[in-house]
Amino acid sequence: VTRERAGPARLLMFGYLSYIILGWILLSLPLSHGETTVSALDNLFVAVSAVSTTGLSTVDIGTNYNFIGQIVILILIQFGGLGYMTLSSFAFLAIHTNMSETQEKTTRAAFPLPHDMTPAFFIRSVVFFTFATEIVGATALYVFFRLYGVEDALWSAIFHSISAFCTAGFALYSDSFMRFSDNTGILLVISALSIAGSMGFIIIADAVRRFAGRASHFGFTSKVILRMTTILIGFGTLLIFLAEPTVASLPPAERLLTSFFQAMTASTTVGFNTIDMSTISNAVIMVLLVLMVIGASPSGTGGGMKTTSFAALIALVRSTLKGRDSVRFFKRTVPDTQLNLAATTLCCYLGCICVALFILFLTEFGASFNALLFEAVSALGTVGLSHGITGDLSDLGKLTIIGLMIIGRLGVLTFGLALAIPDETREEESDNDLAI
Amino acid sequence: VTRERAGPARLLMFGYLSYIILGWILLSLPLSHGETTVSALDNLFVAVSAVSTTGLSTVDIGTNYNFIGQIVILILIQFGGLGYMTLSSFAFLAIHTNMSETQEKTTRAAFPLPHDMTPAFFIRSVVFFTFATEIVGATALYVFFRLYGVEDALWSAIFHSISAFCTAGFALYSDSFMRFSDNTGILLVISALSIAGSMGFIIIADAVRRFAGRASHFGFTSKVILRMTTILIGFGTLLIFLAEPTVASLPPAERLLTSFFQAMTASTTVGFNTIDMSTISNAVIMVLLVLMVIGASPSGTGGGMKTTSFAALIALVRSTLKGRDSVRFFKRTVPDTQLNLAATTLCCYLGCICVALFILFLTEFGASFNALLFEAVSALGTVGLSHGITGDLSDLGKLTIIGLMIIGRLGVLTFGLALAIPDETREEESDNDLAI
Ligand SMILES: [K+]
Ligand SMILES: [K+]
Repeated sequence: VTRERAGPARLLMFGYLSYIILGWILLSLPLSHGETTVSALDNLFVAVSAVSTTGLSTVDIGTNYNFIGQIVILILIQFGGLGYMTLSSFAFLAIHTNMSETQEKTTRAAFPLPHDMTPAFFIRSVVFFTFATEIVGATALYVFFRLYGVEDALWSAIFHSISAFCTAGFALYSDSFMRFSDNTGILLVISALSIAGSMGFIIIADAVRRFAGRASHFGFTSKVILRMTTILIGFGTLLIFLAEPTVASLPPAERLLTSFFQAMTASTTVGFNTIDMSTISNAVIMVLLVLMVIGASPSGTGGGMKTTSFAALIALVRSTLKGRDSVRFFKRTVPDTQLNLAATTLCCYLGCICVALFILFLTEFGASFNALLFEAVSALGTVGLSHGITGDLSDLGKLTIIGLMIIGRLGVLTFGLALAIPDETREEESDNDLAI
Repeated sequence: VTRERAGPARLLMFGYLSYIILGWILLSLPLSHGETTVSALDNLFVAVSAVSTTGLSTVDIGTNYNFIGQIVILILIQFGGLGYMTLSSFAFLAIHTNMSETQEKTTRAAFPLPHDMTPAFFIRSVVFFTFATEIVGATALYVFFRLYGVEDALWSAIFHSISAFCTAGFALYSDSFMRFSDNTGILLVISALSIAGSMGFIIIADAVRRFAGRASHFGFTSKVILRMTTILIGFGTLLIFLAEPTVASLPPAERLLTSFFQAMTASTTVGFNTIDMSTISNAVIMVLLVLMVIGASPSGTGGGMKTTSFAALIALVRSTLKGRDSVRFFKRTVPDTQLNLAATTLCCYLGCICVALFILFLTEFGASFNALLFEAVSALGTVGLSHGITGDLSDLGKLTIIGLMIIGRLGVLTFGLALAIPDETREEESDNDLAI
């Protein structure tokens, strides 16, 4: 079992690392820069941030990279995001098929997947879905950017459409989207792109099948994703609306828009912001931390623990408290394998955050507890929101954040699998039992 | 299943609440105070803190309560701790027997318990073990206190022996044990008492059985508890020794003693301190937070998630990463029921901390992020370490901490069970399935 699962995990890890190194080389070439120089470590940081679609940056993208440099970043984002969506959808399929017959039966009952898709058709569909959405998004953004009077509106529209759909959150403006904080059109287009990217391909495949009359209702996974995304963004919006002093002075409509946008940006892990993260209240930091840890949905471009894992854990808690014999969700039994994977993900996630924070606390004396906590959770969730300390990190701090972004993108579980030492065989094991 | 498990849980909750109210009334009587007056809320806070053996206090115990008041507090601690040890040992037995036959078989194989004990013998043994340890501890403390020249050495020895064994961490000195920071004798006796209390009765029962020749080796649970306690305190000591600037200037032996004592006090959830919590580095705060969340062992007087739950989660992560078909620990299979309970505990724990922090961030504008995080984790783990903000909390903040201490003592799971709404019956359920 180990070799079967560790093999693809290692392949995935080396694939990502190769892609990052390619990006690093391209960003280090002089032709990617204007008159500014960016250090090797900062170029690596940006390359990792782009490939992992995090959006954290130690330098300002808009001023430190020229048009060619920005195109390189955009390509890294596009294929980082697209590759992740394809691979994670595949992984989702793989995990759900690489099982014993009995397990597979129960799992298939709980998470029905499109059986009628060949791999080639599947990849074509994902690519088509991605580019179609991005073109529609870029067109809409272009109109709103022109209306607003943005310079280079076309380039800005293309860049931010891709950056939003891939939940990368890279912005060409040093203040992210704070200058557009009252522009409903721009923020809603960005939100739609981010949510589409973060909910991912399973939803779209299901919607298409339903639309084409091949299915009478959404599949189980789609239902869970839709329900959880709505609850998380809705609840987050409400809490920010009520608890954040910074938005209290705004007119109700703009207050709602700002609250929604900030909850959306944390939950989808896109990571744009229209309010300054370093001035928000601790209560809202708490809300954003929770949303960032839970993260987006599987088979999308977003990061985090994933809404489906969170749903499985909620089902587990409810079932245990209600004393049920089996864990059920939406009237379906969730198999123990799923629960164990979700619990493992949570444990690995917490472990990564604790270890990274311990290192960051040792290397960054100047930064506050919550700024570093926020930075670490944001990096591991590939969100990219920050208290603005990214550029001030020490070299060791930057390397720690780079590590978190890579682990966050590969998925804590995939990463763990890639590094896991194969278990001893059954024979060796029973030998040990005898010896002890 | 629900009624069987929710029944005892509710009984336990109401028992605790009654005991708290009794303590509140006694502490509110004028005869418990000298010339100072303590507000009703602060008396409630101290009563909850004593019954839950947390040790947080909004007022200084040594100066605000007279000898009678201190005796009341000590009695609340003694029966709070003793009751908890008895009840949690019973609960441990109950959970492990209230199962289907197959489950019971696997569980019994994994967690062998003393079968040869009747409930009456069991309670007598726990009480004997408690008082015997406390008397030995008090005698040793008396000697060291006399050598040190402490006033009222006998009362101080009795009070702190009980306070340590019950992992309450109440001290008669406003600086906890900072004045004894270089007194090896006092700190080691306190450590021995705290570790004995926090490891609990399962270990002792096993040790006695082994000593009496009725068992050739320690049981599985005992092994796990011994191993985890050693690892946690050892690892914590090492990290504090290496990472804490406050202890760096001390001579090596005192540096080691201080590091060990602080790791021990967090891990056993006793909560004494010899260094000022508000001046320690963020890295060590992180270490203490992790130790406090993991907490002590089942069937002892300590709080937290419990070392056995932590061990089960580690086993889960290892087994998932190694691709094992079943979760194993010390070459034994850990049943899914155990894993689900451990994962549920972790989720409930995190949920409680997040909700409480959100409330505290709203009510306490003056306090810093990490001081409140530390306070909340300390309260839920019934540890009692604090950045010193307890007395400055608002009324709502105090009530939140009171809530955390009660939940922490009952156990997040017991508390959830007590409040759980019974599940619909199987018939209603299948009705629903048909309707949808
Ligand atoms: K992002
Ligand atoms: K305590």
